Amino acid sequence: MKISFLAVGDELLSGETAEANGKFFAQEISGLGLQMTCLLMAGDDEAEMVRAFEFLGKNSDAIIVTGGLGPTPDDLTSEVFAKFMGADLEFDPEILAGIEARFKIRGMQMPLSNKKQALIPKNARIIGNQFGTAPGYEVELKGRHWFFFPGVPSEFKQMAMDSLLPRLLELEGSRKSVKVKTLRVYGIPESGIADRLIKMKFDPELKIAYLPEFPDIHLRLSAALADAAKAEKVVESAAEAIQAELGEYLISEDDDPLEATVGKLLKARGLTLATAESCTGGLVAKRITDISGSSDYFLGGFITYSNQLKVRELGVSESLLKEKGAVCAEVAREMAIGARERTGADLAIAITGIAGPAGGTKEKPVGTVYMALADDRGIWSRDFIFLPISRDLVRTLTAETALEIIRRRLLNLRMPGEKKDGGK
Amino acid sequence: MKISFLAVGDELLSGETAEANGKFFAQEISGLGLQMTCLLMAGDDEAEMVRAFEFLGKNSDAIIVTGGLGPTPDDLTSEVFAKFMGADLEFDPEILAGIEARFKIRGMQMPLSNKKQALIPKNARIIGNQFGTAPGYEVELKGRHWFFFPGVPSEFKQMAMDSLLPRLLELEGSRKSVKVKTLRVYGIPESGIADRLIKMKFDPELKIAYLPEFPDIHLRLSAALADAAKAEKVVESAAEAIQAELGEYLISEDDDPLEATVGKLLKARGLTLATAESCTGGLVAKRITDISGSSDYFLGGFITYSNQLKVRELGVSESLLKEKGAVCAEVAREMAIGARERTGADLAIAITGIAGPAGGTKEKPVGTVYMALADDRGIWSRDFIFLPISRDLVRTLTAETALEIIRRRLLNLRMPGEKKDGGK
Repeated sequence: MKISFLAVGDELLSGETAEANGKFFAQEISGLGLQMTCLLMAGDDEAEMVRAFEFLGKNSDAIIVTGGLGPTPDDLTSEVFAKFMGADLEFDPEILAGIEARFKIRGMQMPLSNKKQALIPKNARIIGNQFGTAPGYEVELKGRHWFFFPGVPSEFKQMAMDSLLPRLLELEGSRKSVKVKTLRVYGIPESGIADRLIKMKFDPELKIAYLPEFPDIHLRLSAALADAAKAEKVVESAAEAIQAELGEYLISEDDDPLEATVGKLLKARGLTLATAESCTGGLVAKRITDISGSSDYFLGGFITYSNQLKVRELGVSESLLKEKGAVCAEVAREMAIGARERTGADLAIAITGIAGPAGGTKEKPVGTVYMALADDRGIWSRDFIFLPISRDLVRTLTAETALEIIRRRLLNLRMPGEKKDGGK
Repeated sequence: MKISFLAVGDELLSGETAEANGKFFAQEISGLGLQMTCLLMAGDDEAEMVRAFEFLGKNSDAIIVTGGLGPTPDDLTSEVFAKFMGADLEFDPEILAGIEARFKIRGMQMPLSNKKQALIPKNARIIGNQFGTAPGYEVELKGRHWFFFPGVPSEFKQMAMDSLLPRLLELEGSRKSVKVKTLRVYGIPESGIADRLIKMKFDPELKIAYLPEFPDIHLRLSAALADAAKAEKVVESAAEAIQAELGEYLISEDDDPLEATVGKLLKARGLTLATAESCTGGLVAKRITDISGSSDYFLGGFITYSNQLKVRELGVSESLLKEKGAVCAEVAREMAIGARERTGADLAIAITGIAGPAGGTKEKPVGTVYMALADDRGIWSRDFIFLPISRDLVRTLTAETALEIIRRRLLNLRMPGEKKDGGK
């Protein structure tokens, strides 16, 4: 089955918005053994949309279209497609009732512009949208299956998983069983992983994709086979072999982010955690609490952005701050000790640094970060220098490293930044 | 001039790699008053590439192609395009000498497969590549200008800036001045904005794009005119009129996120801020400290995830927690008061709620959030119920609302959730 994708929206062609739906869809269908033939982005322009419909209609069995189903005047997809197929748009009272109900729940009256979203091409099969006002729909035209969805990624994602993928598998007929497993790796570059994996022997049915998701690398293992048990075995045995090869660099085996792995380790050991953040300003705690159930092990944290709060809330010594400034190993250590004592947590992680772009000095340039971890074994601390490409990048890498420090401490692994041979 | 873009590579259609060159190019040319007509991604497949060449050649004055110029067998662009134009590939000894020299510098001998990169279509004009082995080139065919570049983003970026953009401006002849302004709106749906804007009269040269960037809506106003002052006036007068119409819903006029607007307001008034977060777990403080220079007004915050920390760090009363639980208005108020007192900040915002998916009850379902703000005018508090679509969504909306509470308090606007007519 030839599947093509059309993303509609001026914002995609002005470079303001990165195309997300086609990319997500491509990843998902490749996990099902299906493949995208081409991905086209067109603007909110009737002539361009017609050209796109003609081009994709000629050479595809299924065409997925996202965007342009909204309530505003630049949303043209349904109208243009109806013209293209030579049919009329029909008013669907059920859709309208659904839209009105959505607004009512929020105590609002439906703006008139939303009425437009209840107009869909004749004979279209409605595809429900749990999360937004515009439904999707499927139209069959000259043996091609056309699918239309709103462009909002959260809405498309849900509708693709719930309705589109099962429908495509149904159309495909001969269904293969697909087994997918994603391993997450941190602390070794993509080429370093490739160098190791190239020497290994895998089943020829195994597909390995390298997906860099900064700052991690995701290794997506998949096999699509008629025999479900075989597919499972191919993927699982590869995962085991890769796990043995990459060892400590593997941060999760089930596509979990690092904060979930840390959470599982803490929970399994019955330990509690607290944070003391300066330059990350709450990002580490935010990531830890992204995980539902984190209240089982996360007690809380301090964001001591000002020096005064470092002293008052964490007991960092004033003379130390005066003498060495806020960005040094000693302050990180006192912050960790203070957070652990104040909260009664088993572990406390502390972070102080210069995220930039301002605030750097010759001795302590932007990207300089000190971290410390306090637990019943004592205090561990280290300095890091992250590439000061942007404030966001420094903070992202700092938070990932902070979580990695906790993971490695809990697993008794070599700590981040320490040389493999034991250093000097 | 109609400009279209073709990105070639299987990795783009499997979702493994995000398309970066077209997005970058689109941003750059829109700043020059040029516009991309469509962006197509095709795989490393001869038939698909020919279809793409036919489609783009029919309706574009300039076609930019990236990818498939490398040395490996799946790099087919030059070969397929030569066939498409009915010409031969010619061996260019100068290109080969350049490639050999690149390897020599690194003390390496050129692998044989690189020879292929010296084969380019007849009559092509070479475009130099400082950073890689494959040069780019331009071919004129039936009045269309075809440009070919390597797919490596760093190489394409450099070649686009140095050679492609000046060449396109040369082809365009009459250069237009472009003025762009992005307004951010929060608290009114896209359709509600459309309802208001549809009644307004704008200059016919004004283009308005609605860009939903959850939970905000971005309104992108632009005008491309030969007369720079006129373009500026068209955009600025529209911005003023929209500002007057949307009033309190406009959260920034210069594409700043809400946390930047809040930061500017605090700084202008010489006020300081502290946070006390439970269910958002540091997200609000993280967003505030995303802004460089936030240490001027942000003192710090407390993440009191456990009840014990709410008592110990913020002075929330134990009997209140016992009686009413952690998720209630009174606890939010005590958290705000405690955070303000402990830090000495002028304003403190406090948040307690149920982000889910677990933890909801019949009386307090997932999505229930209480927020309070303490300042010298007293304590303001309110309950919110956010749609419990996901933990992430509840937290994102909660954080945005918390920042909006601060913005509205500082501007003496109606507070979030209060009825326009004053409510009951």
